[in-house]
Amino acid sequence: MIVVMKPDSTPGELEAVMQRAQQMGAKTHPIYGESRTVVALVGDLTGVSREVFDEMNGVAHSMRIQEQHKLTGRTIRPDNTIINVGGVRIGGKEVIVMAGPCSVESREQIIETAIAIKAAGGKILRGGAFKPRTSPYDFQGLGEEGLKYMAEAREITGLPIITEVMTVEAVPMVSEYADILQIGARNMQNYGLLNAVGKVKNPVMLKRGMSGLLKELLLCAEYIASNGNYNIMLCERGIRTYETATRNTFDLNAVPVLKQSSHLPVVADPSHGTGFREYVPAMAKASIAAGADALILEVHADPDKALSDGRQTISIEDFGKLMIDLRRIAEAVDRTIEEPELEDMSAFAELEALA
Amino acid sequence: MIVVMKPDSTPGELEAVMQRAQQMGAKTHPIYGESRTVVALVGDLTGVSREVFDEMNGVAHSMRIQEQHKLTGRTIRPDNTIINVGGVRIGGKEVIVMAGPCSVESREQIIETAIAIKAAGGKILRGGAFKPRTSPYDFQGLGEEGLKYMAEAREITGLPIITEVMTVEAVPMVSEYADILQIGARNMQNYGLLNAVGKVKNPVMLKRGMSGLLKELLLCAEYIASNGNYNIMLCERGIRTYETATRNTFDLNAVPVLKQSSHLPVVADPSHGTGFREYVPAMAKASIAAGADALILEVHADPDKALSDGRQTISIEDFGKLMIDLRRIAEAVDRTIEEPELEDMSAFAELEALA
Amino acid sequence: MIVVMKPDSTPGELEAVMQRAQQMGAKTHPIYGESRTVVALVGDLTGVSREVFDEMNGVAHSMRIQEQHKLTGRTIRPDNTIINVGGVRIGGKEVIVMAGPCSVESREQIIETAIAIKAAGGKILRGGAFKPRTSPYDFQGLGEEGLKYMAEAREITGLPIITEVMTVEAVPMVSEYADILQIGARNMQNYGLLNAVGKVKNPVMLKRGMSGLLKELLLCAEYIASNGNYNIMLCERGIRTYETATRNTFDLNAVPVLKQSSHLPVVADPSHGTGFREYVPAMAKASIAAGADALILEVHADPDKALSDGRQTISIEDFGKLMIDLRRIAEAVDRTIEEPELEDMSAFAELEALA
Amino acid sequence: MIVVMKPDSTPGELEAVMQRAQQMGAKTHPIYGESRTVVALVGDLTGVSREVFDEMNGVAHSMRIQEQHKLTGRTIRPDNTIINVGGVRIGGKEVIVMAGPCSVESREQIIETAIAIKAAGGKILRGGAFKPRTSPYDFQGLGEEGLKYMAEAREITGLPIITEVMTVEAVPMVSEYADILQIGARNMQNYGLLNAVGKVKNPVMLKRGMSGLLKELLLCAEYIASNGNYNIMLCERGIRTYETATRNTFDLNAVPVLKQSSHLPVVADPSHGTGFREYVPAMAKASIAAGADALILEVHADPDKALSDGRQTISIEDFGKLMIDLRRIAEAVDRTIEEPELEDMSAFAELEALA
Repeated sequence: MIVVMKPDSTPGELEAVMQRAQQMGAKTHPIYGESRTVVALVGDLTGVSREVFDEMNGVAHSMRIQEQHKLTGRTIRPDNTIINVGGVRIGGKEVIVMAGPCSVESREQIIETAIAIKAAGGKILRGGAFKPRTSPYDFQGLGEEGLKYMAEAREITGLPIITEVMTVEAVPMVSEYADILQIGARNMQNYGLLNAVGKVKNPVMLKRGMSGLLKELLLCAEYIASNGNYNIMLCERGIRTYETATRNTFDLNAVPVLKQSSHLPVVADPSHGTGFREYVPAMAKASIAAGADALILEVHADPDKALSDGRQTISIEDFGKLMIDLRRIAEAVDRTIEEPELEDMSAFAELEALA
Repeated sequence: MIVVMKPDSTPGELEAVMQRAQQMGAKTHPIYGESRTVVALVGDLTGVSREVFDEMNGVAHSMRIQEQHKLTGRTIRPDNTIINVGGVRIGGKEVIVMAGPCSVESREQIIETAIAIKAAGGKILRGGAFKPRTSPYDFQGLGEEGLKYMAEAREITGLPIITEVMTVEAVPMVSEYADILQIGARNMQNYGLLNAVGKVKNPVMLKRGMSGLLKELLLCAEYIASNGNYNIMLCERGIRTYETATRNTFDLNAVPVLKQSSHLPVVADPSHGTGFREYVPAMAKASIAAGADALILEVHADPDKALSDGRQTISIEDFGKLMIDLRRIAEAVDRTIEEPELEDMSAFAELEALA
Repeated sequence: MIVVMKPDSTPGELEAVMQRAQQMGAKTHPIYGESRTVVALVGDLTGVSREVFDEMNGVAHSMRIQEQHKLTGRTIRPDNTIINVGGVRIGGKEVIVMAGPCSVESREQIIETAIAIKAAGGKILRGGAFKPRTSPYDFQGLGEEGLKYMAEAREITGLPIITEVMTVEAVPMVSEYADILQIGARNMQNYGLLNAVGKVKNPVMLKRGMSGLLKELLLCAEYIASNGNYNIMLCERGIRTYETATRNTFDLNAVPVLKQSSHLPVVADPSHGTGFREYVPAMAKASIAAGADALILEVHADPDKALSDGRQTISIEDFGKLMIDLRRIAEAVDRTIEEPELEDMSAFAELEALA
Repeated sequence: MIVVMKPDSTPGELEAVMQRAQQMGAKTHPIYGESRTVVALVGDLTGVSREVFDEMNGVAHSMRIQEQHKLTGRTIRPDNTIINVGGVRIGGKEVIVMAGPCSVESREQIIETAIAIKAAGGKILRGGAFKPRTSPYDFQGLGEEGLKYMAEAREITGLPIITEVMTVEAVPMVSEYADILQIGARNMQNYGLLNAVGKVKNPVMLKRGMSGLLKELLLCAEYIASNGNYNIMLCERGIRTYETATRNTFDLNAVPVLKQSSHLPVVADPSHGTGFREYVPAMAKASIAAGADALILEVHADPDKALSDGRQTISIEDFGKLMIDLRRIAEAVDRTIEEPELEDMSAFAELEALA
């Protein structure tokens, strides 16, 4: 059930509604939209009449919702969620580009890449420190050391960082370093992990599983939200089909489908989605045209020497060119990609010092 | 094997090369590109030395090609194929929009729709007269009567027409009415039909099968080309996957993949691809951003009353708005969609006469 | 609508029912079951009351049916259809094994293989004369010459033959040679071809398409049946999924699903289904345990030298051993596989003469 | 690399080999087969010559292996692994049937079901106490209370129990109650959880993910094995495809594929695989015919009232009948399913006491 408050309701009236619902055994999730505040009541409310709430002070009306994904659905919140990560707003008019290497390989690599990404207009730095690998014998990432290098790159460039967290145990540590926690495709339905990242403050980017239905993706986001963390981005990264011309089948249709049924920002990952760097520019442009709020791209100074996923990684030079093309597409759909700030060249000085 | 002629070679020299190859048992396919003429030799040439041709007058050099799709591959023809249909050029800088109802339902319906499509900037009229239906008991289309109505709509509007041909027997008749023959998804590997449309003059739009690999699609195009008809467009219309949020999974990745490996124009069909009209605008825009040469869209005066596929059909009004948005995307990728010609209002007079 | 006749109704009463229905615009399909005769009325019968028929002489009762597949559904015919092909009964208690090479390669090959198959207990000889090939440049089969060799193998061994027909034009010719017409997976929805084989007398084996839904398979069978040919077998031969450990994903679940919703015999093809000869014995046994009425297996004297599909073809020796194992499984599910007739060795004499 | 010891090598010689390898930085995994002992060396052994080991006492020879799945592959261990769970041997000649409700619902329910399962010849009791549910608002299982009821059912019947563990934190607790730990399909690639169950003594049944490749399943088993726990069963439970006639597509081909490439026991789950109880008997029989070492079946006293998965659950009565049919199939492939022990009726007395 959701209870919609009047535009001029007071915090005290809101509090009263929530207490009443809690007494009935429901969990309460207040949603502060731009135009109105609603309270989602989650739990077994069979037998509870809507009139109980309709009669309370400050309440406009209440309604039962049928969607299984309540907190993440459009019904409860028609406005888009905008997530503020260190001043970068994801879900608003600006299309945000996240970029970086698949794996953090060394301090120099991640700092150099971060500076180049910032120079081209990227707004968030991605990089993997804990890598989910199909074989237990493959390179598993630098771990905390990698996180430290990323944090250093953030200090130098000012770019917030996103990185994957794979286990419940690692959530506290990764949360301390990372601005955004990424849940990878293999863990979409790792409910223990979803519950754990639902209890921290960091925004979460949840990737669709290889055979995840979009309605399942929304319910996995619901696991996070029902624990109190509403800052969730949904990420399309390709699904598994019979076609082998691409590594995965990047299902761009997910963008309009998710935007219609949820208020959460949608991120497109054409690097994993296609698996081949030559297809990334076309599908990155298509992603923005389809309505994605953000892109996440794999970029490396020397893609052919990347420790993982080199085949789908574009070079820094190509990334710079692509950003120019993406800006044009964003404008053609009434959105923006900001020009890079050129005044602040101190980062490059830092880079020289590294060399 | 392909034999590349010198830029200044004469028709007689070309003829000599082809005769020599035919004597060795090969079929010859001359490809007249903008920059050079090449001759594809198809057949068992094991044991035939390339020197036989390299030494002939007018020959620049020859080479063996490994791709299975020879005539439709980029190796043999680096330049894009541009197909001229009644003055409409598909595969060039302009993005062509084909539109119309799923089924031709009546004379009035198709003429009215054709006029509206032209007024919004559509360049080719689509419409089904022979419908492939899952059940033998469903509406199977108006047949030749429908083709006559389409031809009349063409006379009034000047729009070339595209329609599906389903059987070998119907090829002569449909070829007489239609400017472009469509091979539907269910018939992608109907080799008898592919051979038949390979022997007529009309350009062919070949749709990817529901579980067609892109390399199979190219080999099916090869069936057509190897019969002598090189005017082939490849159409992505969605594949069958586990996801049910969309009717099919519109695999837009097909666009960059096909453009890379083939010189043929690529058409995107977001109507069948997504199956829901509310997702068509986003994916139509994305298609152009991804590099599609043309779109094919289902448009109906009253989509909810359409005899087939109403759920994925947009209204004439929404089509008009969409065309404006598509033009902006086309320009953002250095292509064009022409403004509709407004001077010629005689078609509307015709429409009035119908009413 | 279906009209169920009384057990003791007369042919004249049946005829009267059919005439009445035809006058109302329906097509009539009488189904002669073991226990009762029913007449399926297909066409628009909206507004026609069931009482019209219920009151007629010889009618037990009538009912409307909701399934889209009417003639091929269990509702209309609870008894299993048994198809008699030259004395071999498919769909009864005996599990029938069809076997032979993928392609007919020579007169000697097919005769030799036929004799060996008969000696091991195979009841029907398979072999391809017209081959649907992904590339137009691959071996397309021996054509009519191949059919002649198969007919000769039938004369020698007495085994009825099954072979694929790919085009409408070839239906008359192939029908003359073959006992059973096979419609391949690529042509499952080639409606022109389905209509054509619906008009001949030969039994038809219809293969499921690579991405065919089982309900689509039944509707394709309905195309055949609605043309008057009710002798149809449904064949599971693997579907296209993401898994690459097998060539296709042999979807054995199709057997119980089809047996539940249709009265038609179900054939399992573990050769195409798995694509690897080492998995064929396990899945052939599983097919019988799951309830298949027949198997179709690729067998070749020297599988590694087969012109097509060698990887999934078992040797004659392994076929002989497998037949023994299959007989045990058949008995464990209360069915049978007959022991081969050993008395008639004249075929072997014929074989000697060939050598 | 693997080092194969001579049949008559001594424990001291084996120890020396392992110490030498550990000094070189490898982890050592001794595999005690029936016919020979081999030591798998896992780690970076580039540059280490095989001669180092070949010259040691007690060594027959050494070899490098190419498969990614080393410890779980047939190369290293040609003999089948047999897992002994409280006297029940999984992977041997006897086909083991595990059965029970999807969820533990009450003390009475699980005890009553356990007794009935034992009476019909089931050897292991399944039941879910922690349920992975798509929605956070669905019934999540009874938790530890459910485990206590299962333990009680084991005491009464003597049946070992299998139950799912979903999080790393729950591993110690679930390990204490359960004889076999189940890793569910959603967690196939939850590497943290795989590492955790790799460190306990309990055998593990690892289910294939909804879009898991078989080679990925083997590598996930390798995660467990590389932590020291070799008692792993692989479970096929259906994959996600486009077909909707069954809940999942039960990919029975997995059985021969996995048996060929791994020495681990393979379990088939036709309940989840098909999702409909009417298809379970056919596919259970087929599973044994295909070579499965064990079945896991959902059985409930009143399937239509089951709290979860009722549609795919068979009744106790049908389970009893099915066991008789399964025994016949097992014998037809030279395996066995033991008759239930009828002498011990004390369990029934216990059941009466409950009522």
